[in-house]
Amino acid sequence: MTNCEKLKGFRDFYPDENAARQKVFDKIEKAVQSCAFRKIDSPAVEEVDLYRIKSGEGILDETFNFEDHGGREITLIPELTPTVARMIQNRKDLNKPIKWYSIPRCWRYESPQKGRLREFYQLNCDIIGSDNAKTDAELLYSATEVMRILNLEDSYLIRLNDRRLLESILESYGISKTEEVMKVIDDKEKLTKKEFKEDLTTLGLSHSVAEKADELTDISGKISQKTEEIESKIPEDKKAREAFERLENLETFLKAYNIRDKCRIDLSIVRGLDYYTGLVFEGFDSEGEYRAIFGGGRYNNYLQLFGNQELPAVGFGMGDAVLEEIMREKNKWPDEELSTDVYILNVDENKSREALKLTKELRKQEIRTEVNLSKRSFSNQLGYADNINAKYVVIVGDQTASSRVEVKSMDDGSEEIVEKSDLVSYIK
Amino acid sequence: MTNCEKLKGFRDFYPDENAARQKVFDKIEKAVQSCAFRKIDSPAVEEVDLYRIKSGEGILDETFNFEDHGGREITLIPELTPTVARMIQNRKDLNKPIKWYSIPRCWRYESPQKGRLREFYQLNCDIIGSDNAKTDAELLYSATEVMRILNLEDSYLIRLNDRRLLESILESYGISKTEEVMKVIDDKEKLTKKEFKEDLTTLGLSHSVAEKADELTDISGKISQKTEEIESKIPEDKKAREAFERLENLETFLKAYNIRDKCRIDLSIVRGLDYYTGLVFEGFDSEGEYRAIFGGGRYNNYLQLFGNQELPAVGFGMGDAVLEEIMREKNKWPDEELSTDVYILNVDENKSREALKLTKELRKQEIRTEVNLSKRSFSNQLGYADNINAKYVVIVGDQTASSRVEVKSMDDGSEEIVEKSDLVSYIK
Repeated sequence: MTNCEKLKGFRDFYPDENAARQKVFDKIEKAVQSCAFRKIDSPAVEEVDLYRIKSGEGILDETFNFEDHGGREITLIPELTPTVARMIQNRKDLNKPIKWYSIPRCWRYESPQKGRLREFYQLNCDIIGSDNAKTDAELLYSATEVMRILNLEDSYLIRLNDRRLLESILESYGISKTEEVMKVIDDKEKLTKKEFKEDLTTLGLSHSVAEKADELTDISGKISQKTEEIESKIPEDKKAREAFERLENLETFLKAYNIRDKCRIDLSIVRGLDYYTGLVFEGFDSEGEYRAIFGGGRYNNYLQLFGNQELPAVGFGMGDAVLEEIMREKNKWPDEELSTDVYILNVDENKSREALKLTKELRKQEIRTEVNLSKRSFSNQLGYADNINAKYVVIVGDQTASSRVEVKSMDDGSEEIVEKSDLVSYIK
Repeated sequence: MTNCEKLKGFRDFYPDENAARQKVFDKIEKAVQSCAFRKIDSPAVEEVDLYRIKSGEGILDETFNFEDHGGREITLIPELTPTVARMIQNRKDLNKPIKWYSIPRCWRYESPQKGRLREFYQLNCDIIGSDNAKTDAELLYSATEVMRILNLEDSYLIRLNDRRLLESILESYGISKTEEVMKVIDDKEKLTKKEFKEDLTTLGLSHSVAEKADELTDISGKISQKTEEIESKIPEDKKAREAFERLENLETFLKAYNIRDKCRIDLSIVRGLDYYTGLVFEGFDSEGEYRAIFGGGRYNNYLQLFGNQELPAVGFGMGDAVLEEIMREKNKWPDEELSTDVYILNVDENKSREALKLTKELRKQEIRTEVNLSKRSFSNQLGYADNINAKYVVIVGDQTASSRVEVKSMDDGSEEIVEKSDLVSYIK
């Protein structure tokens, strides 16, 4: 006998647990499929180089990476986007725009904690080859469709921003180190006002500029209510003007999709520094108690790192850990239970073959049918049937000789004698 | 730009390819669910110790194993059975018999070749906690149900054996090294008669005993037609008698399931030496051109290696690589194509918002709807709609002002003017 524990941060899903999770995943797939995203599937393992491109050597500490027997440096995928980029660059013939989704497992070597696991599932939706406000709105809409189908419509808000807009305003303040400043802005939520401004002055910003950056990144609210304030702050240059008009355009399309009220502009949203070139957004529970439920943005300069095709892209990811926490808290997580249509009970072993024949008939009609496999008593069999939530118990006993069976409804306990030839239609 | 290749022996599935594969997997799940197997899900990574139990250090050469940052020896799972054993031993409260299935990815560090990949999917079905011929038949039947639902009913046969039966007959020949002899029998198919007998005499068997072992393991055919011959060879001991009666019993239940004609007894079937204690079986294409499509057997002494519960078990595995090859060869692999219900075409950008509103209405009804996201011509949009196999194109143009749209059927090219309020029912 050996150590029989699973690894820390990994999960076992027993049938009742898996049935509930499967229902959630099926709904998610239904939502994104209705939005005409196409499912792809891809390796769980890739070469480390694929991640070095953007993440450098830091990726080695955060992933499950190793040398295989052939000396290749490989890793369990920590995210899907590099794989998507690789797959798209390997096919020049794909019609644009490309709309792909998948729900791969991803692995990160982090300390497991609330909402953060070492192995998790992550929905990825990307639209590649189209760069306009309508496409941004389509992607945001898809995320809201997922939330709607999960009955979380009233439980979240999207906070969005445009990095070009933020960057151009920061530049107009005379800030040159916009990357470093954006890193501080990314942390703003975790900092006090004082800490935030101190971090900025440490970067060389004057107190008054730090003050202005603080005021700027305090802007948040309904887009239509903030456009005037934002417009008053943008400098007179093309980049700022384009970003601002894009935001106005986005607002129009969000209105057409009727999801405008789910969205807030928030100039402190930056989402790290890895990919994003324009729109960035995060979906949060309305109370703001959890990590982001989903997040994403536009990454127009990313695909070309993986091949010759220059393709703009926008996408989002949604992990299953935070989603599950919120759904459980809101009582939206499905019941964890087994379902069975029919249990075939045989009163004695002589009836076994008869029972198997009936079992086969029902299963052929896609009726989920369990049959007694052991030598056990009538009441033991009934208990098992109850345990697997059988809707009906078909009793193969003395009636069987006369081509009939007794059917017991486990819902109301009623019993009826049914001709075997009528059994399928009786059950269905 | 970097190296953008996937790893050798791993696979990318583009949307059209994935759609076909998904159809196959969905069918498989439907079959095993109708047989009341319950889906589980489990980690892709386990501690190496879990495999050492049965496979020893040899497992290290054949798997993707490594030390994680915490110094744990871990591996991508090469098979599911140890995980199933671990999960069952961690729960004493599960009702028996337990019927579980899953289709995990597995990874093996082998040279990729026809029907053998480094990353593959494998259907696993197990019945745990029941040891009788009826349970064996139920498991075999489940495998045949999978083959039936995939339209492979006429394309395969099951060859089965009972290891106790074979072992007891070999022992009656005075053979003591039955394990080594069974290893040679396992290879029989790849050997000439001469090589086979030489390998046996090398193990110390006399020429006449090697001859008898050869004759014995040549026995194959319909079970009912071979029972007499087998009975004439079994020794007068309890083990042999029990195994023989179990075989006769199994035959009766296979008949009840009406799958007797899919099964052949074949005394050369051994299936390695790792787990199996009784029934062993393999599903082969009728022409015998491929590796086994599926294989399994009874492993009654295995679960207890992982915990305190002593539980008999029987199971089978079916990888997707050989299955795909055979389905393709038989023209049973689904068409690789995208499917789309509706493409919403806007004649000019002014109609974009109108188009998005319609899109949203259709998607809410789970109609898979694509909408034009780019500025492009009427004919370009129509070409894209054709490319994604849209059934209908809804043209949002001048008619739209009057609350109507034009609907073009892409099947027959017919066009009709439809009230927007009737659109959902028209499409459905």
